[in-house]
Amino acid sequence: MPGLRFAAAAALIVAGMFPCVPARPQAPAATSRAPAAKLVEDLVYANHILYDQGVVDGFGHVSARSDKDPSRFLLSRSMAPALVTSADILEFDLNGEPVDAHGRAVFLERYIHAAIYRARPDVKAVVHSHSPAVIPFGITGTTLRPVYHVSSFLGAGAPIFEIREAGGTTDMLIRDNKLADALAITLGDHSVVLMRGHGFVAAGDSVPQAVFRAIYTEVNARIQAEASRLGPVNFLTPEEAAKAAATLETQMPRAWELWKAHAGKIE
Amino acid sequence: MPGLRFAAAAALIVAGMFPCVPARPQAPAATSRAPAAKLVEDLVYANHILYDQGVVDGFGHVSARSDKDPSRFLLSRSMAPALVTSADILEFDLNGEPVDAHGRAVFLERYIHAAIYRARPDVKAVVHSHSPAVIPFGITGTTLRPVYHVSSFLGAGAPIFEIREAGGTTDMLIRDNKLADALAITLGDHSVVLMRGHGFVAAGDSVPQAVFRAIYTEVNARIQAEASRLGPVNFLTPEEAAKAAATLETQMPRAWELWKAHAGKIE
Amino acid sequence: MPGLRFAAAAALIVAGMFPCVPARPQAPAATSRAPAAKLVEDLVYANHILYDQGVVDGFGHVSARSDKDPSRFLLSRSMAPALVTSADILEFDLNGEPVDAHGRAVFLERYIHAAIYRARPDVKAVVHSHSPAVIPFGITGTTLRPVYHVSSFLGAGAPIFEIREAGGTTDMLIRDNKLADALAITLGDHSVVLMRGHGFVAAGDSVPQAVFRAIYTEVNARIQAEASRLGPVNFLTPEEAAKAAATLETQMPRAWELWKAHAGKIE
Amino acid sequence: MPGLRFAAAAALIVAGMFPCVPARPQAPAATSRAPAAKLVEDLVYANHILYDQGVVDGFGHVSARSDKDPSRFLLSRSMAPALVTSADILEFDLNGEPVDAHGRAVFLERYIHAAIYRARPDVKAVVHSHSPAVIPFGITGTTLRPVYHVSSFLGAGAPIFEIREAGGTTDMLIRDNKLADALAITLGDHSVVLMRGHGFVAAGDSVPQAVFRAIYTEVNARIQAEASRLGPVNFLTPEEAAKAAATLETQMPRAWELWKAHAGKIE
Repeated sequence: MPGLRFAAAAALIVAGMFPCVPARPQAPAATSRAPAAKLVEDLVYANHILYDQGVVDGFGHVSARSDKDPSRFLLSRSMAPALVTSADILEFDLNGEPVDAHGRAVFLERYIHAAIYRARPDVKAVVHSHSPAVIPFGITGTTLRPVYHVSSFLGAGAPIFEIREAGGTTDMLIRDNKLADALAITLGDHSVVLMRGHGFVAAGDSVPQAVFRAIYTEVNARIQAEASRLGPVNFLTPEEAAKAAATLETQMPRAWELWKAHAGKIE
Repeated sequence: MPGLRFAAAAALIVAGMFPCVPARPQAPAATSRAPAAKLVEDLVYANHILYDQGVVDGFGHVSARSDKDPSRFLLSRSMAPALVTSADILEFDLNGEPVDAHGRAVFLERYIHAAIYRARPDVKAVVHSHSPAVIPFGITGTTLRPVYHVSSFLGAGAPIFEIREAGGTTDMLIRDNKLADALAITLGDHSVVLMRGHGFVAAGDSVPQAVFRAIYTEVNARIQAEASRLGPVNFLTPEEAAKAAATLETQMPRAWELWKAHAGKIE
Repeated sequence: MPGLRFAAAAALIVAGMFPCVPARPQAPAATSRAPAAKLVEDLVYANHILYDQGVVDGFGHVSARSDKDPSRFLLSRSMAPALVTSADILEFDLNGEPVDAHGRAVFLERYIHAAIYRARPDVKAVVHSHSPAVIPFGITGTTLRPVYHVSSFLGAGAPIFEIREAGGTTDMLIRDNKLADALAITLGDHSVVLMRGHGFVAAGDSVPQAVFRAIYTEVNARIQAEASRLGPVNFLTPEEAAKAAATLETQMPRAWELWKAHAGKIE
Repeated sequence: MPGLRFAAAAALIVAGMFPCVPARPQAPAATSRAPAAKLVEDLVYANHILYDQGVVDGFGHVSARSDKDPSRFLLSRSMAPALVTSADILEFDLNGEPVDAHGRAVFLERYIHAAIYRARPDVKAVVHSHSPAVIPFGITGTTLRPVYHVSSFLGAGAPIFEIREAGGTTDMLIRDNKLADALAITLGDHSVVLMRGHGFVAAGDSVPQAVFRAIYTEVNARIQAEASRLGPVNFLTPEEAAKAAATLETQMPRAWELWKAHAGKIE
């Protein structure tokens, strides 16, 4: 399995690259408030799956709200998602600051995750991606809408966040809580928000659901772009989307098991 | 061979994921009415091939009419096609109900298969897919027509099924026999029917033929979309398509053997 | 190397599939007029490379004029190119008939090769492909012209063959010498001819050159289609193309060695 | 890891292909002016990464200015980048002539590198590619501009070099210092210059930076082409691009480590 061997070799290379990092830095301590091992495992799989499915490259990140403490969330240290192991997962508070970074670098854009967990108690996982298929929608102001039942979580369409309105001339990054709050307001109660000249964010009530939404946001973008060149598109109505989304909930494990198998065994 | 190792690893992972499922659930009993082992093998290969060739992802399914009892058909339990083994194949009656599900979950859309087997005695295998390349045609009302001899089975063009006409506002799924009958009527005596906002169905007189049609429906969609941007398309005439389809019948094993080799050894 | 393991596994599967075929059918006898082993090896590599580079799928074929007898050419029996071994190579005369088929099925369209070898003494190798990227040009009457120096062999543009003019309503196949002669006339002294609703043929003065032309015909098609959507295209002039083609001749081994390495060891 | 095994097998094949080449030709001698082993290693990785990421095929090349002598640069002998080992790296002077070619063939277009190192003391590495995604921009006169922060190094847009203005009717190659100087003038102080009917050149202040720019030039081209079909594009302003580029500098190692891991261990 390519994914498996890739991950193994990658681990060797990373080990060699950062000699100053302990071979097995400690995962969050196993106290009563430490997240369950299953949640950490899901989060590591999510990192590998998002790379394997083409939704992230060297950049992008995925987080999960702690199942033991809703005021904390888990996110890897600053690194390529495909190379993440459980030892790279750190805990953050809802201001986006690491509880204990163990001296490791953290993502500049961790505030994206923090702001969404603050604003949306229902959200348990967040994906941030620069997927090439999605960028064209944000930079042309084209609304991404569901072309089929599998992307019905797009509902009546994904809103687009314009960082110029919130921050003027920036380096395009969500590098503080003020910008992140503005992004969370644009997200509102949607599942997905596009970011002009940057990428998108998908939120879900579990790690598999957020990953599912990120993957099919990218697929929907490719289909919608192609369809728009053939003629006017007959999208799912908001009512069809709502009904389809409810059914789809029950079918997600089917995709998650496939993606895990394809990405290969972790660690 | 990536496919081979992927399947092997996937089997391990699935085994670990469903501890409540017996390691080797029983295949349909070897009575005089049980389908031939060769048919089950072809159906398992079909599942893997359709994933390997990009026609299905975590969703989609393929069935075969029993070679021992035309009032029965074979279809896997509800799972990703790439992970199917012979132990996952169940037998269904022509109402779409499992003869004995052995307690396992079945596809919501098994009625698609049942209705087509009821309406079309000549059909021995059915593929249902959400292929991204095909969706744009259904949602823009663009007729898919044969661009070359290899997709000549498209004849004068594939009809498009609009579920709103048959069921009003739905969750887009063919989840009962009433919707499935409407779909079968739109299919008529064609090889392929597109489903607006959902995907398509390909039917054939054997598992390899249905798989062949599903794969080249997807290829034709990509070619036709690309060609339509260069100028008006000179399609095969219905007469050319009919002649080409007759010749093509004799050449299908060449592709089937390749796809089997590429997908990798099963089980 | 995926290609290597794929070929090995494929050989096993094919061996199991055709029990009536001797495990190692005889290659053309090693008489003074038998082609050199190096030519046969190049031809087997060409089969694997064309599949590995996406120019052929289960269909398509490549031939080489015998280096010992210019009135003979070499072509595999009727099978998927990716699975060809030296034992599958047969010798044909310039009427397109096998010298001795050893009871094996031959391609319906072997006449394509025969007619071009008859009409073009300079041609030593011929590729026939249904590449999806190229079909849109033939079916919209769009001339394929060189977008960069690497495809400069397209010169002032590739002619398009319309089988209706030569054969009326057909099954689209070049299944006799009459149709093949008409195709060869349209090819004229070009390197490549497109076939409406079918595919294309590339000819060269060696196996590597014909393969190179087939691969970059496909790449040129993708680039030209994409460019034509951005605005009017500034193609290489015929003079630039002629100069670039002369230089390119000396650089082809670089690509051939790469493609061999990527396709993997044969047999 | 596919990349790893591919490289290993490729090395075997190449070894067998050039029996006249010593099995381990000497790398530049380890004198005080010889480049550091780390620079040679980075350059070999760059060759493999650019192939693995789809930016070069059998053609294209990447060089690095010597870290011991700014009047020298390192470039492989004339061969496909994917097959390069440290033994294939040669040293050149700023006129583009090899210091000692050890009898091996050198690239016709080595002058591209020489001219840019002459004109731009800040440049430490140069990539030349024929990426299919980028060609459409040069041949339609469409300016490539940054669609997102990751390609912010494109600034206000990449200039396009028209070889007809500098050399009249040519074979499209930069085969002498006169043409190369004209190219360097068009590049000016940009990071990237497109070459009409040929490809592009990316320059950077390190091997990882030049590789990063080459890879994301290709990604930007795909995104921009797609976006331009959806509507008018809202590019990064030059000010946003400048700010984003400054931030991005600090994030590049993340991508470089991933690409190395994916390309596989060299030698």
